[in-house]
Amino acid sequence: MKFVVDQQIEDIEMPENLKLNTFLQEFHSDCPHPECNFGFYGFAFGQSPFPVPKLIQEALVKNADKGAYAPISGIPELRNAISKYNKHYFGMDVSPERIHVGPGTKALIFNLLEILHGTVILPTPAWLGYLPQIRFLKKNYHMLPTRSNKKISPNNLRRLALRLHDRQKILILNNPNNPTGLLYDKLELEEISDVCREQNITVISDEIYAQTTYDFSKFVSMGKIYPEGTFVTNGLSKSHAAGGYRLGYVVFPQHAVDLKTQFKKILATEYTAVSTPIQHAAIAGFEISKDIEEYFEVTRNIHQIMGEYTYNALSSIEGVIATKPNATFYLLADFNHYATDLQKSEIFTSQKLSESLIVHPYHTAIVGGDSLVLERTDFSARIAYVDYDGSKVYQNYLNNKPKSASEKLEFVKNNAPKVVAGIEMITKFFENVKKTSLNLSQTQKNSMMTPS
Amino acid sequence: MKFVVDQQIEDIEMPENLKLNTFLQEFHSDCPHPECNFGFYGFAFGQSPFPVPKLIQEALVKNADKGAYAPISGIPELRNAISKYNKHYFGMDVSPERIHVGPGTKALIFNLLEILHGTVILPTPAWLGYLPQIRFLKKNYHMLPTRSNKKISPNNLRRLALRLHDRQKILILNNPNNPTGLLYDKLELEEISDVCREQNITVISDEIYAQTTYDFSKFVSMGKIYPEGTFVTNGLSKSHAAGGYRLGYVVFPQHAVDLKTQFKKILATEYTAVSTPIQHAAIAGFEISKDIEEYFEVTRNIHQIMGEYTYNALSSIEGVIATKPNATFYLLADFNHYATDLQKSEIFTSQKLSESLIVHPYHTAIVGGDSLVLERTDFSARIAYVDYDGSKVYQNYLNNKPKSASEKLEFVKNNAPKVVAGIEMITKFFENVKKTSLNLSQTQKNSMMTPS
Repeated sequence: MKFVVDQQIEDIEMPENLKLNTFLQEFHSDCPHPECNFGFYGFAFGQSPFPVPKLIQEALVKNADKGAYAPISGIPELRNAISKYNKHYFGMDVSPERIHVGPGTKALIFNLLEILHGTVILPTPAWLGYLPQIRFLKKNYHMLPTRSNKKISPNNLRRLALRLHDRQKILILNNPNNPTGLLYDKLELEEISDVCREQNITVISDEIYAQTTYDFSKFVSMGKIYPEGTFVTNGLSKSHAAGGYRLGYVVFPQHAVDLKTQFKKILATEYTAVSTPIQHAAIAGFEISKDIEEYFEVTRNIHQIMGEYTYNALSSIEGVIATKPNATFYLLADFNHYATDLQKSEIFTSQKLSESLIVHPYHTAIVGGDSLVLERTDFSARIAYVDYDGSKVYQNYLNNKPKSASEKLEFVKNNAPKVVAGIEMITKFFENVKKTSLNLSQTQKNSMMTPS
Repeated sequence: MKFVVDQQIEDIEMPENLKLNTFLQEFHSDCPHPECNFGFYGFAFGQSPFPVPKLIQEALVKNADKGAYAPISGIPELRNAISKYNKHYFGMDVSPERIHVGPGTKALIFNLLEILHGTVILPTPAWLGYLPQIRFLKKNYHMLPTRSNKKISPNNLRRLALRLHDRQKILILNNPNNPTGLLYDKLELEEISDVCREQNITVISDEIYAQTTYDFSKFVSMGKIYPEGTFVTNGLSKSHAAGGYRLGYVVFPQHAVDLKTQFKKILATEYTAVSTPIQHAAIAGFEISKDIEEYFEVTRNIHQIMGEYTYNALSSIEGVIATKPNATFYLLADFNHYATDLQKSEIFTSQKLSESLIVHPYHTAIVGGDSLVLERTDFSARIAYVDYDGSKVYQNYLNNKPKSASEKLEFVKNNAPKVVAGIEMITKFFENVKKTSLNLSQTQKNSMMTPS
């Protein structure tokens, strides 16, 4: 039997991170090089390496018997806890009525894009999950390339908004940012919100990395700066290393009661509610406690140490420009300095660069620029610095906190040898690309001198 | 700030079961009658009353630490277990590659309707969840009213299919059926599948109630009869009383490899994967074990006892016609005998009938006909017989299995007093409706005789 698939489904592509993951799984078991059984240095998959906080695990254990359907918007205890969490950590007064719980922020952002009419403004580079959603929903969208500092230019945002004639415009703000690891400060958010007010732009502020901000006092939520026009999404996945649990939440804008009703309909129509035991477990993650506070501190400190190492190591490769992360476990590395050399090795696209780095002898997995909604020929890549044993490293950090620069360097070398070795591989790769390029130029020159 | 919502969202309605549940929650805390603090007799909400099987709870406890993202289609161990489960219980050879796990069958059916092009054929009465999905996705659809026996007429299906000019037609088959509790036997399925082959109709066979079939040897999956054209959905919600866990699966038709790839894209775009700890827990539910087998037997026996009682008690009300359930925990009761009497009490729609039954002194919650995709003036209703303490009743059943008719009657009276009292309320309601109607006729006659 032949089945007919809706056209827009045929047209969308698999989200790049999952495509890559599938590719890596296949590659892992099948390196074509004889006698090579090494997998890869994993700079590609964006998952926190730490164990789920004990408190959350214990709460899940205690609530395994909760087999009944939960209310569509989430169980009241959880929404209360999230309300207090927002007050405590983000200084936001958000009543539980403004909070909806969903099976991950990805699903919630998808549902928001489903209900909100209008053109989407997507700053680039961007997390690899937004574009497939926008395309699948057949929404109008426009890219907004960021400035050289990789942040949104308020003026460019205004210029773009003035060109759009849709009744509603939706800006997807991702702060702290995946893939750059950069944090927008209060002033920057205020400048963006001024334009949003002026141009009537609705904001979906994906703040899933908020708690990973290295100097947490610097984090400011867009929900605080622009409360009347911002949907804030957050969840357990990154801060609580529980991506597999699948639980996120969205804070609705002030006075958006109408919209909440529409949103509930969608959730009820598509998936009823989030897993009840998982919701009960999540309460422990959002309740204020010394354990969770310590967990946030330790994990963000480790991310910072790994991030500084990765930034310094990549920046020390000739010509490589990297963003210096203030949060998350990513940075964006710009390898365009090698564009001409790469082309001489028949590497014309970022996709090809990723493929060239993953094969023997480099075995290094990165997320190439086109997956980050950059030009296919932009040799930038997202580098995730999480390829280490999170449980061990957490414990090692607690046992002996590195303070000085040299202690931190030692900590990375001892605890994340694959991160260190992977960056060495990247270094070696570009050295070889350069060498090949020089040799080719030499051969070319020689051949020009020796007529055939 | 004013937000613009997409038009199709405005147009769809909240799924009736969830609307009703919200209504009941509100009503529960606010009966306007003085000195009344009774809630309601719950014939409305379709949730298994039993505890989640111990084995599943224990497996969830053991896997609380699983914080990592799961593969899009489900973890391999789970898909293997589901494959063996299908072999053991349904006699189906389904390789794990044909199985996809999702956050409940509701979500999976939604995703299937998203990817499958074509016109939907919806037999009525129907589960209250399908229509909002179809409408939200703006799909073409046609109702297919069932025959007087409440089953699909193959001839009518053929006639309808011949009228449809879409390249693909999708029949939603729900077997065993919600709301009727009826089971399609092998011959009936073969007759339907003959039409489907002839007319090139794709089937989504929602078999979430398969394990509740009272005489389980009688259950036959459409996936066995029409393997090349059927998507079978099933899950933990009804058979394992774990609706709150949110885990279902779909078995893809034979040789539908292409489609699986399309489907994976959707899942990856919308929600990544199902909660990892929940997936691990589900393995215990699908693995063949004595414990789970006993659980299925006990729970389906109890459903049968309650169902027979409910059927007999409702059938003994003058003029009421009920379906005699072979499975599930529902039946369909037809109160149209009272249509004229109800109209005299200003009850013109099934919605109004539901509202009249829920208020003091009846306090009885049913799902009215329009929520089951019947005419608004069709006074039929779904009666769920699950308003009892499932844990206690399970234990009582094990301690002393009722065998004879009188033992079963005693069992219902002792274990499900709210079911008994609720049906008495329905009886009383219709007695009063009749009385009011007679009085009105009398008054009318008198007033006709006494000129004013």
